Amino acid sequence: MLRRVYNEALANGRSYPWLDHLCNRVGHRLSGSAGAAQAVQWTKSVLDTLGLDSVWLQPVTVPHWERGEPEQIKVIGSASAGSFPLTALALGGSVGTGKKGIKAEIVEVKSFGELERLGEANIRGKIVFFNRPMDPTRIRTFEAYGGAVDQRGSGASKAAQYGAIGVLVRSMNLRNDDFPHTGSLRYDTLYPRIPAAAISTNAANRLSQLLKAEPKVMVSMKMDCRNLPDASSANVIGELRGSEKPGTILLAGGHLDSWDVGQGAHDDGAGCMQSMEALSILKRLGYKPRHTIRCVLFMNEENGTRGGHKYAAESKRKKETPLFALESDAGGFAPRGFTFDGDPATFDAFFEKVKAFKPFFESYNGMTFTKGGSGVDIGPLKDQQGLLCGYMPDSQRYFDYHHTAADVFTAINQRELELGAASIAALLYLVDQYGL
Amino acid sequence: MLRRVYNEALANGRSYPWLDHLCNRVGHRLSGSAGAAQAVQWTKSVLDTLGLDSVWLQPVTVPHWERGEPEQIKVIGSASAGSFPLTALALGGSVGTGKKGIKAEIVEVKSFGELERLGEANIRGKIVFFNRPMDPTRIRTFEAYGGAVDQRGSGASKAAQYGAIGVLVRSMNLRNDDFPHTGSLRYDTLYPRIPAAAISTNAANRLSQLLKAEPKVMVSMKMDCRNLPDASSANVIGELRGSEKPGTILLAGGHLDSWDVGQGAHDDGAGCMQSMEALSILKRLGYKPRHTIRCVLFMNEENGTRGGHKYAAESKRKKETPLFALESDAGGFAPRGFTFDGDPATFDAFFEKVKAFKPFFESYNGMTFTKGGSGVDIGPLKDQQGLLCGYMPDSQRYFDYHHTAADVFTAINQRELELGAASIAALLYLVDQYGL
Repeated sequence: MLRRVYNEALANGRSYPWLDHLCNRVGHRLSGSAGAAQAVQWTKSVLDTLGLDSVWLQPVTVPHWERGEPEQIKVIGSASAGSFPLTALALGGSVGTGKKGIKAEIVEVKSFGELERLGEANIRGKIVFFNRPMDPTRIRTFEAYGGAVDQRGSGASKAAQYGAIGVLVRSMNLRNDDFPHTGSLRYDTLYPRIPAAAISTNAANRLSQLLKAEPKVMVSMKMDCRNLPDASSANVIGELRGSEKPGTILLAGGHLDSWDVGQGAHDDGAGCMQSMEALSILKRLGYKPRHTIRCVLFMNEENGTRGGHKYAAESKRKKETPLFALESDAGGFAPRGFTFDGDPATFDAFFEKVKAFKPFFESYNGMTFTKGGSGVDIGPLKDQQGLLCGYMPDSQRYFDYHHTAADVFTAINQRELELGAASIAALLYLVDQYGL
Repeated sequence: MLRRVYNEALANGRSYPWLDHLCNRVGHRLSGSAGAAQAVQWTKSVLDTLGLDSVWLQPVTVPHWERGEPEQIKVIGSASAGSFPLTALALGGSVGTGKKGIKAEIVEVKSFGELERLGEANIRGKIVFFNRPMDPTRIRTFEAYGGAVDQRGSGASKAAQYGAIGVLVRSMNLRNDDFPHTGSLRYDTLYPRIPAAAISTNAANRLSQLLKAEPKVMVSMKMDCRNLPDASSANVIGELRGSEKPGTILLAGGHLDSWDVGQGAHDDGAGCMQSMEALSILKRLGYKPRHTIRCVLFMNEENGTRGGHKYAAESKRKKETPLFALESDAGGFAPRGFTFDGDPATFDAFFEKVKAFKPFFESYNGMTFTKGGSGVDIGPLKDQQGLLCGYMPDSQRYFDYHHTAADVFTAINQRELELGAASIAALLYLVDQYGL
């Protein structure tokens, strides 16, 4: 059966042509945007053609943030280099600067500890520049991300606590290039909401260099972004009904929303198309599942996880048994493994069971089976005591694209994407056949 | 020690900036070309700066083939589409067509068996079109390559045996695109040497489609390529001398020559820079090897393997003990494993020993240790009874670039390349410390 799954994916895979459409016809699709609405309708229309037992939209109310006019972030009147722009993107959820913008001296820090030591005396009225790079020596790039992303997520409120009026953050990127990486911030309600933007790694390096020579250099920020009233959207769901245990659900999913730059190809068009294709492969091979196998395209992973919470609440309300939930949200690269997580009450037994499937993947380049995270959207299911799983492709290139204008369809390799769909279909099949 | 090796590669790796120079300053470097001569001089000059114990050139006489003016391969006067070009590259070693070119009907076949069944009656005076695709369902793309490349290597002489006057070959490519893939052919001296070219997969699909409607359609071929007298070149070698067993050699290598299109980035600038960097990392970390550790940049892998044969002959003549030889010639992609080969007299014992090193790689994304091929250039060492090893990165993207104009520096990911250098340095270290 696994040989048939992989043959079908490699010879007749649909993830890649579907992703072409999603990227090149629909485009990016931030929650609340026209692109997101179009993506919901189009993916539902595709699922409707696959011969599944049921396809539906699950309504979700989502945050609605807009970037507005392009950001203008500039160094002003430096002695050595005059004025020049810093390639930047406002962070998702940031307030704007107002039409006049802001202008202030820059304080560069590498950590919240350093910020605290500098204190209000050195920070009030200034723009804080968080410039701690991702650690290149971490083998798994997501660990390097985990070690740096606090600057983006919490930097604005941490800086506001000491009186800063704006924040610049070095992009979450392991290489030096000109792409700023957006992503969400969270404001702490205790402190004023100040505008925050990511600047490219090249811009961060240049600014840092300049500050060594000219510590008093000024930066201006003009950002048009704003938070609008919540909008209506939906999770998109399709399923093959189980013949023996229809109320027990095996789920594969990704998130349909993306940031508002690029095309959301790796993040996470790839995971959505793979989830649809995993079901479609099983259907095309005539497989009749014992449990219900469902694909879920979650809305609003990037800035709210409203879709994930809504799905989990509905699962509980309908008294479903979410035995197994897998998320593909780490890019469309070559398969490397699965990570597993779950409620402590049930996890150890599930993990022992699922590890028994590892040898089946040896003929397919091998997959690691390790404890680890699963996915942001399936996380809210954790207390419903199923096994959670993250599909983990090779991570080396992921942060070349993540949340940037470079995350486009041409950055996807067809075989790598389709092999991912096959891996997901294979694991769904094994869990369905042999249980947990 | 392995942690230090990986840290050094990821934080201060030199493979990537070196490869930038090799690709963007030197460029492609077919045996006998000015580029190849420049690559020999430049890599030697880099090795000279690394503080190695010895750096030298090992003279090699190489074949010298030139493409000359760009190929012109065209469909002529088809009823449905008129005349149109087929995107093509002459195969390396092919004779030209003469100034007037050739023009004939096309016979499409998928195999040598089909050719034989058609026989001279259907083939004499025509151009044979070999159009068997690589099998997309093979997980390892090199296996798909192995199942199709006979058409390129032997197709010309097989067709000439039945009186064909020219050959077109579907490019060795798993995707449909417009890049023709060159590569060497071998003429059988029993039959006339006829001109042969690869056409892109898109061109092959179009031609095949056309032949279904118009079986008598004509194709013209004009190719300016020619074989010139042998030229002088060299293998480039550097070494750290062993403190305990200087006559026992641990080798890491790649091949310095490339095809005459693109920049030879993945094939095999990557393997050369990784081999240099593996030695350089050990040197930078202050490591004093027990055995002699050597990097060898072989000349003429692509169309003759003269460098590999010369190196093996010199190893024998100098009574060296080539205990371990590794070649990196499968692209600069993310590390996946090592394959091992050797003389049957010694192989099993070596393989048992080397497998004991596998667990050391678990913290570094894991490496498979399997029996398999090693490398074209180190193959001639096999009867000297050491352990041969192929460094195997992820293979999914390799045939998107192999022998094409697309094999350029921008197709390389820095972290993937440097992780490869680290993996090679790590295995050299383990073999040196713990023996085989």
